[in-house]
Amino acid sequence: MRGGADEGESLSRGRAQTVRMRLHNNDQPHMKLATLKDGTRDGTLIVVSRDLKHAIKADDIAPTLQAALDDWNYVSPQLTDRYDALNRAPGSRAFDFDARQCASPLPRAYQWADGSAYLSHAERLRKARGADLPKSFRSEPLMYQGGSDAFLGPCDDIALESEDWGIDVEAEIAVISGDVPMGTPAKKAGEHIRLLLLANDVSLRNLAPAELAKGFGFFQSKPCSAFSPVALPPEELGPSWDGGKLNLPLVVQVNGEILGRPTAGVDMTFEFPRLIAHAARTRPLAAGTIIGSGTVSNADQSAGPACIAEKRALEASAGGEAVTPFLKFGDRVRIEMFDAEGNSLFGAIEQQVVRYTPHR
Amino acid sequence: MRGGADEGESLSRGRAQTVRMRLHNNDQPHMKLATLKDGTRDGTLIVVSRDLKHAIKADDIAPTLQAALDDWNYVSPQLTDRYDALNRAPGSRAFDFDARQCASPLPRAYQWADGSAYLSHAERLRKARGADLPKSFRSEPLMYQGGSDAFLGPCDDIALESEDWGIDVEAEIAVISGDVPMGTPAKKAGEHIRLLLLANDVSLRNLAPAELAKGFGFFQSKPCSAFSPVALPPEELGPSWDGGKLNLPLVVQVNGEILGRPTAGVDMTFEFPRLIAHAARTRPLAAGTIIGSGTVSNADQSAGPACIAEKRALEASAGGEAVTPFLKFGDRVRIEMFDAEGNSLFGAIEQQVVRYTPHR
Repeated sequence: MRGGADEGESLSRGRAQTVRMRLHNNDQPHMKLATLKDGTRDGTLIVVSRDLKHAIKADDIAPTLQAALDDWNYVSPQLTDRYDALNRAPGSRAFDFDARQCASPLPRAYQWADGSAYLSHAERLRKARGADLPKSFRSEPLMYQGGSDAFLGPCDDIALESEDWGIDVEAEIAVISGDVPMGTPAKKAGEHIRLLLLANDVSLRNLAPAELAKGFGFFQSKPCSAFSPVALPPEELGPSWDGGKLNLPLVVQVNGEILGRPTAGVDMTFEFPRLIAHAARTRPLAAGTIIGSGTVSNADQSAGPACIAEKRALEASAGGEAVTPFLKFGDRVRIEMFDAEGNSLFGAIEQQVVRYTPHR
Repeated sequence: MRGGADEGESLSRGRAQTVRMRLHNNDQPHMKLATLKDGTRDGTLIVVSRDLKHAIKADDIAPTLQAALDDWNYVSPQLTDRYDALNRAPGSRAFDFDARQCASPLPRAYQWADGSAYLSHAERLRKARGADLPKSFRSEPLMYQGGSDAFLGPCDDIALESEDWGIDVEAEIAVISGDVPMGTPAKKAGEHIRLLLLANDVSLRNLAPAELAKGFGFFQSKPCSAFSPVALPPEELGPSWDGGKLNLPLVVQVNGEILGRPTAGVDMTFEFPRLIAHAARTRPLAAGTIIGSGTVSNADQSAGPACIAEKRALEASAGGEAVTPFLKFGDRVRIEMFDAEGNSLFGAIEQQVVRYTPHR
């Protein structure tokens, strides 16, 4: 899968070659992992080739991604070996990789904690309703606890009862951690990052204000989140990953049109190690904890937003009316990130919003 | 384990006999379940005798409690059979039940959503700081998403870095659900309740105000929660469970002194089916979801509170100063519930607060 040429041009040819070289460093775990739907709650762990064309089962190494994370130091070298073999030659046990057959890498997780690390996102949403950003937002990460018991697969429908809820996409970067001891400082938190992936933190904008006013944070305004088909360790990202953030544009589309392509490495006030340290301040984090960046957002408006609410806020702040509608049934969203050469790194989150009718 | 005689006297002898009779209804799953620490992340599922004296492994039926919940209709009759056999005669494979060897029934869970169903709790805490209860609190449950990746065992230490955080106990009732479809109405939500248990939703009172002011709810102010050693299905409770709430006193002690013994079936504005429906409004709940009642609290002050903050609020509201201190290192808390005959139903949550020193 190839993105627009300008992603490739944004990094020099020399840097792209460094990326390739680094990807062959066998000292660090390198792999692309996904979870195949198989009718069970946790699916089957598979290894995916670097070009996302082939895959091979890895359930003999670890039955599920959670099982792999539970025993990462033992399991990850074996996954790396299988990945290297798959990339050399697919072999007879390999099959075509199809993101539509995938569950979320962790179909259910023990923790999903989502930060709000890009302050221009928070600032724009507040400005549109006439509020300033509290000063504490610049010194202390904002984070909410999300539901993690039932994630949507990367190509699963976003099924909801009502368009009136203000259905929105929120495109984010997320990391999956190993075990993080309570009180781990930011300077040591980075070493607990096992995998990165993309997230669609689906939000119901019209339910949020009443919930936030009650003071206990989001609940109904955050339905099931979705994640990219593929999760990968930092080593797969070469210099695009600087140990704290991922410096590539995140391409967000609605119905085939670009909504925005903000760069995830720009304007991230609180980097991932800081977010992990915040989450682990008063309790340990168990392996398989997913920590989100919050909606990626750049101060430079020309990048465009990674959620509709921010686009509407910009429209309203420009003195006009917020004209871009939230998502309707039938609308499609796509979230993807490309490397310096234009190759999709994580595969695409590609979802359609559909009507859900509950049985009452 | 026997509680004070007055619990037994609070229900008539005839009613107590009905309880016993109902407990032998084999049409409904009945059992007491716990999880033995075994060095793994999820422990070993065990069945505990009704009198909490004996236990027997059940990992041949389902390796873990989560596995049992994932396949409840198939597994629960087998657990009931083993429970009946254990109660008839312990047998050679049984061993003495010891809550100190137990992990939380679900050592890690995919969801922990905690309501605030007893409005006198919220009202007192707000009144103490001069705020009224918003009207919406009476029509719509308040609920926050809690961390569920690492629960404390029922007798595990509450290890925290600082007494200055305002360490408090919050004694609650909780239910564990099966799969709940999105949009399930309250009138149908009760049928998804699989198990009940007690909770200590440990809270850091001095961290909460700044977190709530930021609008995203609790995070650092809610460290690891603990649950009772035993979880049991509604059938075990006889008429004390009316389908929506559990009508027995919850006995809370600090350092061996009664803090309070509010009755969980009194003043519960939002019953469990309502709380489940609230949680499932915009997303399904996966099997193993734990839904908490919030701190049990009665409008009748003579019952005493189930958390220190409420005691302090009552002291302040009475025109004096809040004199009862929050928990200090070395302090012990105990949470337990007794049936009509004074027998401990769930075993006791019995924890000590200790100092934790992070490695920085």
